[in-house]
Amino acid sequence: MKFKIKKLKLGAGRPIAFIHESRAKELNVHVGERVQISYRGNKIIAIVDIVRGLLKSDEISLSEEILSYLKPKPRDYVDVGLALEPKSTRFIFKKLNNKQLSKNEIYSIVHDIVNNSLTEAEIAYFVSGVYENGMSLKETIYLTEAMFRTGKILSWHTREIVDKHSIGGIAGNRTTPIVVSICAAAGLVMPKTSSRSITSAAGTADVIEALTRVDFSPNELKNIVNKTGACLAWGGSLGFAPADDKLIRVERLLGLDPESQLIASIIAKKLAVGSKYVLIDIPYGPQAKVNKARAIILGKKFLAVAKHFKLKMRVVLTLGDQPIGNGIGPILEIRDVLKVLERENPPKDLEKKAVFLASQILEMTNKCSKGQGADIAQQILDSKKALKKFNEIINAQGRKKNPLKLARFNYNLKANKSGKIKSINNRVINNLGRILGCPIDKASGLYLHKHVKDYVKKGEKLITFYSESRKKMKEALEFYNDTKPILF
Amino acid sequence: MKFKIKKLKLGAGRPIAFIHESRAKELNVHVGERVQISYRGNKIIAIVDIVRGLLKSDEISLSEEILSYLKPKPRDYVDVGLALEPKSTRFIFKKLNNKQLSKNEIYSIVHDIVNNSLTEAEIAYFVSGVYENGMSLKETIYLTEAMFRTGKILSWHTREIVDKHSIGGIAGNRTTPIVVSICAAAGLVMPKTSSRSITSAAGTADVIEALTRVDFSPNELKNIVNKTGACLAWGGSLGFAPADDKLIRVERLLGLDPESQLIASIIAKKLAVGSKYVLIDIPYGPQAKVNKARAIILGKKFLAVAKHFKLKMRVVLTLGDQPIGNGIGPILEIRDVLKVLERENPPKDLEKKAVFLASQILEMTNKCSKGQGADIAQQILDSKKALKKFNEIINAQGRKKNPLKLARFNYNLKANKSGKIKSINNRVINNLGRILGCPIDKASGLYLHKHVKDYVKKGEKLITFYSESRKKMKEALEFYNDTKPILF
Repeated sequence: MKFKIKKLKLGAGRPIAFIHESRAKELNVHVGERVQISYRGNKIIAIVDIVRGLLKSDEISLSEEILSYLKPKPRDYVDVGLALEPKSTRFIFKKLNNKQLSKNEIYSIVHDIVNNSLTEAEIAYFVSGVYENGMSLKETIYLTEAMFRTGKILSWHTREIVDKHSIGGIAGNRTTPIVVSICAAAGLVMPKTSSRSITSAAGTADVIEALTRVDFSPNELKNIVNKTGACLAWGGSLGFAPADDKLIRVERLLGLDPESQLIASIIAKKLAVGSKYVLIDIPYGPQAKVNKARAIILGKKFLAVAKHFKLKMRVVLTLGDQPIGNGIGPILEIRDVLKVLERENPPKDLEKKAVFLASQILEMTNKCSKGQGADIAQQILDSKKALKKFNEIINAQGRKKNPLKLARFNYNLKANKSGKIKSINNRVINNLGRILGCPIDKASGLYLHKHVKDYVKKGEKLITFYSESRKKMKEALEFYNDTKPILF
Repeated sequence: MKFKIKKLKLGAGRPIAFIHESRAKELNVHVGERVQISYRGNKIIAIVDIVRGLLKSDEISLSEEILSYLKPKPRDYVDVGLALEPKSTRFIFKKLNNKQLSKNEIYSIVHDIVNNSLTEAEIAYFVSGVYENGMSLKETIYLTEAMFRTGKILSWHTREIVDKHSIGGIAGNRTTPIVVSICAAAGLVMPKTSSRSITSAAGTADVIEALTRVDFSPNELKNIVNKTGACLAWGGSLGFAPADDKLIRVERLLGLDPESQLIASIIAKKLAVGSKYVLIDIPYGPQAKVNKARAIILGKKFLAVAKHFKLKMRVVLTLGDQPIGNGIGPILEIRDVLKVLERENPPKDLEKKAVFLASQILEMTNKCSKGQGADIAQQILDSKKALKKFNEIINAQGRKKNPLKLARFNYNLKANKSGKIKSINNRVINNLGRILGCPIDKASGLYLHKHVKDYVKKGEKLITFYSESRKKMKEALEFYNDTKPILF
């Protein structure tokens, strides 16, 4: 079917064709389906979007990705036909039927994810197949390899590239900026990239963004690392293991996190930034992502895949039974981080965990002998060398002028009886943060005055809530009363 | 985050919000994800589409579905925030984990599919869950009930509403118009709705559309049926069991067809049009959708679900080992149908199957006694009462003026040796039809001069190919030579 091109400046990182509803009916295509667009012998697959106005029925609007590929003359015609499904859908079908995939088959799937040839629904089928039927060690290795090879890869002049990763799930657990500052101050190179929040109140990238820019090109990132020995960047805009970003987006719809994909995703990103040493932190506990038994198995699988890629890896299991630090929310968390670095009334649990993780990295890279890591890390922190390094990194990334002000409205929630705190529900605390406006409203969130095992007197402050909106504050309090996340 | 509304006349049957790339980044939303749009206390969930031009960064364009719900003043502001996932995603997760779903849980999923609250990726997770873990009889009944109750339902003054359905997969198998004409001529009421092609060269709706309109509103459909006793309509625009249309769209991405969803889908649509008697045709064979063993099991499950809804059902298993009729493609197939109805050189296999199916309906509705159905059906056909009824229906639907011309280019493929035909591959024949331009180019397709067990002399015509394009013709011939669908 012929369509006349109407230029509209569309584009969102993938090939999209806007067509009129009446023609879509004739073609029998629906929103989100694929069509093949041909122009003078060149063909490209596009995802359909349907409009009722905006275009005449014989017009089509093509996103920049398509225009730059087909290079049609303005107001010329393109031919639109039904697209055959990409071959990789057959391999996804195979995985759904519990068959092992070959290296080529896994590469084909990853390739089609990166090239936007697979729709999100097809990616969901792949995730389900892996979730239901698992992947062998071999398949996990192929997936890892395919993921990092289909994206940008950094290389460095030194071999001492270190990295850390936590599988996440613990509210407030903002050790990364502290660990990076300690390790870089000790002379290690740490090109750290982090994600934004997926289901929690804040991700490391959201927190750092309260102070500085976090979205860089690979070259900018290299410059920052060459200058300071480290960075605290957002991983999303860098193009490392790009298939992974799409997989995560589809996984999070249902909160799925198939083990082999989790492992492949983390290791692929570490390989892409050129890491040689990686510390993996697996918090376990009742409201963490895994319990202790699964944490042990997961750790072993991480090590098996890392070994294949000659990546030196250490796995630590840490107790993740309550939030870490006092602040939950971007600005509240960066304030905790600064308290630790500035040695002014630091949250003890956050400091302790950061020093522990840093000590592991110092020991595995032979920056010190076994057993000495904690002392050295503590020393770097106490001497404020870590603070100095942190400020270097933030300045190199472009420090923002804004002060770290908290949100307009706050509310102190007080204990209605005395007693010892038995448990604090991580997940509810994260949800509370989101209801209050996190991570978009950086100044919103909550401040925990008490932790598990603390003794509280009736009328003492338990939590302070922060929000930019009275309505969100009200919703958060209602949610708190419904869920009672703090048990005495 | 506040956005100013820019009116653009967008709309494609679901709530879509267009936002600028820069703001999407700040909100951390991607194409196809959900946001919540609020205006003066009213909230609606929308799917995000991202543009680079077209809008300023603080502008938003909302599809008509959203505007008609929120009724904002022109150029006023709406608030956009991240949407919490709908509750039904938890139930989908449950099914992926092989748990039984309750009636309320299944209703919640179907409801959210109909309301566009679930993305296609989430629907894919549901399909995978059912595909991997199956559904009990109870779950299948709940699914059926939820599907037909969330859509339009027709009611009639008579109880003699009959219907037929083939689970499909056989090229050329266009019995429906003949069966409907015979049964309606016998005095039964048959509000038949059909689908367009999904993976085959043509669906019944595509074929009928060569002669007449097929897209009606429920009221138009009722008028046609009240006037003629039957209709031959497209089911897609009528709003019967609307969740099913979306499920099928997602299923077809991978060619999945979970048994319980197949059963629920068919029975829900029959209940929605008010059927009291339904004949189910299950073609089996090596390239059909099922083999004989599975056909038997499937038939029993159909009967169990139908019984719950007090639907009188008969299931017939028919041999589907080769295409039926000579023409494959919309116009080529309607020509076969007309030959049968006009009693002029009809394809014998098509006639025989149509008479058989009609006989079953006549017997199950007690229009005749057991064993007499075939004679009566044949009589209605031979007397041209069926032709008369067919013409009434087509005229009531609005007969098109265009003659049934075949495509511009044709090519006769001849036998390169003599012998008896052993097999004809159904699937390849369907694919050939699609390559030649079906179902969009209605005049394209293929004509089979021979069937299985026919004796062919070297040089005799085997197939005539029809296409509107020389290129497609060439591609089809190459595909034919690669796949060799006819074996001697």
